[in-house]
Amino acid sequence: MTHPRVSGVGLTRFGEHSERTGRDLFAEAGLAALDDSGVDPDDVEALFYGNFMGELAEHQGHQAPLMAEAVGLDVPATRFEAACASSGAAVREAVKHLRSGEADVILVGGSERMTNIGTAGATDALSIAADDLYEIRAGMTFPGAYALMARAYFREYGGTREDLAHVAVKNHDHAMPNEHAQLRKEITVEDALEAPMVAEPLGLYDACPITDGASAAVLTSAEYAEEHDLDASVAITGTGQGSDRMALQDRDHLLKSPAASKAADEAYADAGVGPADVDVAEVHDCFTIAEVLAVESLGLYEDGEGIIAAREGETHATGEMPVNLSGGLKAKGHPVGATGVAQIISLTEVLDGESPWSDDVADARVGVAHNAGGTVASATVHVMEVME
Amino acid sequence: MTHPRVSGVGLTRFGEHSERTGRDLFAEAGLAALDDSGVDPDDVEALFYGNFMGELAEHQGHQAPLMAEAVGLDVPATRFEAACASSGAAVREAVKHLRSGEADVILVGGSERMTNIGTAGATDALSIAADDLYEIRAGMTFPGAYALMARAYFREYGGTREDLAHVAVKNHDHAMPNEHAQLRKEITVEDALEAPMVAEPLGLYDACPITDGASAAVLTSAEYAEEHDLDASVAITGTGQGSDRMALQDRDHLLKSPAASKAADEAYADAGVGPADVDVAEVHDCFTIAEVLAVESLGLYEDGEGIIAAREGETHATGEMPVNLSGGLKAKGHPVGATGVAQIISLTEVLDGESPWSDDVADARVGVAHNAGGTVASATVHVMEVME
Repeated sequence: MTHPRVSGVGLTRFGEHSERTGRDLFAEAGLAALDDSGVDPDDVEALFYGNFMGELAEHQGHQAPLMAEAVGLDVPATRFEAACASSGAAVREAVKHLRSGEADVILVGGSERMTNIGTAGATDALSIAADDLYEIRAGMTFPGAYALMARAYFREYGGTREDLAHVAVKNHDHAMPNEHAQLRKEITVEDALEAPMVAEPLGLYDACPITDGASAAVLTSAEYAEEHDLDASVAITGTGQGSDRMALQDRDHLLKSPAASKAADEAYADAGVGPADVDVAEVHDCFTIAEVLAVESLGLYEDGEGIIAAREGETHATGEMPVNLSGGLKAKGHPVGATGVAQIISLTEVLDGESPWSDDVADARVGVAHNAGGTVASATVHVMEVME
Repeated sequence: MTHPRVSGVGLTRFGEHSERTGRDLFAEAGLAALDDSGVDPDDVEALFYGNFMGELAEHQGHQAPLMAEAVGLDVPATRFEAACASSGAAVREAVKHLRSGEADVILVGGSERMTNIGTAGATDALSIAADDLYEIRAGMTFPGAYALMARAYFREYGGTREDLAHVAVKNHDHAMPNEHAQLRKEITVEDALEAPMVAEPLGLYDACPITDGASAAVLTSAEYAEEHDLDASVAITGTGQGSDRMALQDRDHLLKSPAASKAADEAYADAGVGPADVDVAEVHDCFTIAEVLAVESLGLYEDGEGIIAAREGETHATGEMPVNLSGGLKAKGHPVGATGVAQIISLTEVLDGESPWSDDVADARVGVAHNAGGTVASATVHVMEVME
C-alpha cells in the first residue's frame, strides 16, 4: 500500500460572502486546486464533497453533482454529511479509494454558506448536528453544550476562563499572516475576558465565528503523482473515524471524546506512528475548550493537561507542539462543510514549508488533522507525513 | 477481486409511520438485517447510511452516528446524500471497501420520514433535489419536471398516457404479494386514466406515493461469508455511478439520462456482463415515465422502445424482462433515503428464490438495480449475480 498524495490545494477567503452562492464558492476553490495540482482535469475520477447545512441555508440538497458541474467535471460526485466533520469524512473515503487502487485522482472538498441566514438562522441550522429530540427541543445550543464541557473540565481538573483565553489569543495570532482567514485581528487575554458572555464560562472569543467559504484538494495515488512528476511530497498516511452516542446525556463522561480517541488510535496505527511522533496539529477548535479536549483525545497531552498547553505557549508556532497554525476554526473561520479539507490544506502547507509559520516549524515531518462533528458524535483523524 | 455478498436484509413496512422517528424506523430495519445475516454485531466495521431530507423533515442532520447508536453499533458511521440515490451511493462505497479488503462487514441502509410534514412539506423538501436557483424558484416541482420528459418522449417517439398507465398497473400488480409495500391495491388502466391529473400528462397513478420507511443490508466480503458459513449466495458484482448537469435546461436532451447510462456502462464493465445478460431489474420509477427512461438507460430496451415494454407485458413477472417485481417506487413506496438499499434487497430475494414472484423468474441469475437522484443528475447502478 502506498500513500495518497496531496497534489493541489485551493481555498476561498473565509469570511462573509453572503452575496455569493455555494456553487460559486466551490468553483473558486475547486478550480484553484486543479490549477495548483497540474493534473489534467480529464484525469479526475470522482468528486467527494462535504456540506452540512445546504438544505437550510440554500434550500439546496443534492449538491455534489452541482459542485462537479461548477468546476467543469463530469464525474461521479458524492456528498458526505457528518455535521462539522463532513469533509473530513470525504477525505477518508478518498484515501480508501486511492490506496486500494479504485482510483488515481479524486477531488475532495467542501463548502458552506452560513452568513446569509443570519446568526439566529445559523445557530438553528448548526443545532441539527446535536440530538433534536433530546437536546435541541430542550433548549440546548452548541455554545451551551461546550459550556457544559468547560464547566465539567474546570471542576475535574481545574482551569479558568483565563486559561481558555490563551487558546483564543494564540489562534488569533496564528491567523494574522493567513490571507484566507476570517479574523485577522490580534487580541489579548484581557480582550477575551472582557468580551460579552455567550454561555458561561464561554465568552465571545471562546467561540468560532459564522463563516462562508470553500476548500478543495486534489488527492492522487502515489503512483500517479510519480508518473506525472507532480510536486506532491506530502502524503496522507493514516485515516481514522469514530462515533459516539449523539446526546451528551447518554455518554459516560463529558470530558472524553471517544469518537476522536478511536479515530486517532486507528489513524496512528494505520500510519505506524504515535502521538509522540506528531510535530504539528490542526484540531477542531469550534470553541476554546474543544481545542483542549482535542489535544487530549489525540494523545498529545494527558487528560487534564491540555488546558495548560496554550497558557504555557507550548501550542504556539514557537512552542513544542504547534496547534492550529492556520488560526484554527477560531480565527481562520469555520465554513462547516469546508473545514475538514481546510485542515488538510493547512497541514500540507506547513509540512511543505509553504506556511507563513514555516520558519518556526522547519523540522516538522508529521502532522495530524482532527475534524469533529457536533459535540464529537463523529470524528475523523488523518495523519500526514512528508515523503522523501 | 472477489465479490461482496448480501448476507442479511431488513425492511420496515413502507407506508405512513408519522408517529415513529427516523431512528426508530432504522433500528427496526437494521436489527432485522443483522438478525437475518447471522453475523456477530461485534464484527460490523462501519455503517454507511443514506438519508435525504432529515434536515427538513426531522430537524435532524448528522444522522449516521444516531443510526449506529439506534442499532447498538459503536462503529464509524457515515451519511451519504445523493437525493433519491442516497443509499445507492452508500452501497457503492460499501462495495468498494469490501472488495479492496478495507473491511469485511459493513451495514448499509437508509431511512426517511416524509408523511409527518404533509404533502406540501414533502413536495417542498423533495424539490431541493433539483436546482434551487434555476428550477425551483421558477416554480418547478418534480411532477412538473417528469411531465416535461413525458411530453418530450411522446413527441419524439410516440406513446400515450395509456402506455404509461400500463407501467403503473404492472407495478401495482407486482406489489400485491409484497408485505412491505405501501400500495397493495390492484388498479386498471382505466383507473389510472381517470385519476386526477397531477401535471399533464402525468396523473395520480403515474407518481409514486409519499412514504416513511427504512431499509438495511449486511454486506460482507466473500471471504468472510465463506469463513463464517453464511447463507449468502447473492453477490454485488458491479458498481457504477454517474452525474449530469443539475438543471434540465442545461442538458443536451430531455430523453436521455447520461448519469444513468454512464453508471450502467461502468457497472456492466465492472461485472463483466452486458444488458443482454440481465434477467431482472429494479429501476427508479418515481414516475411511470422514469421507468421507461430507466430501462432505456440501462440498455434493456432501445431508445423509444421502453414505452411498449409494459404495454406488451414484457416487464411483468410473467414477461421476458421483469422490472420492479417489488412493486417499484410506484407501489412499494419511496422513502427516499431507503430506496437504493430496498432495491438491493428486492433483487437479493428474487435471485435467492425467496420472492413471491420467484416461481415466475426461477432461472434469473443476473439482476440490475438503478437508483436515481433528482431528475437523474446522480445515478448509481449495481449488478447482482447468483454465485455458485
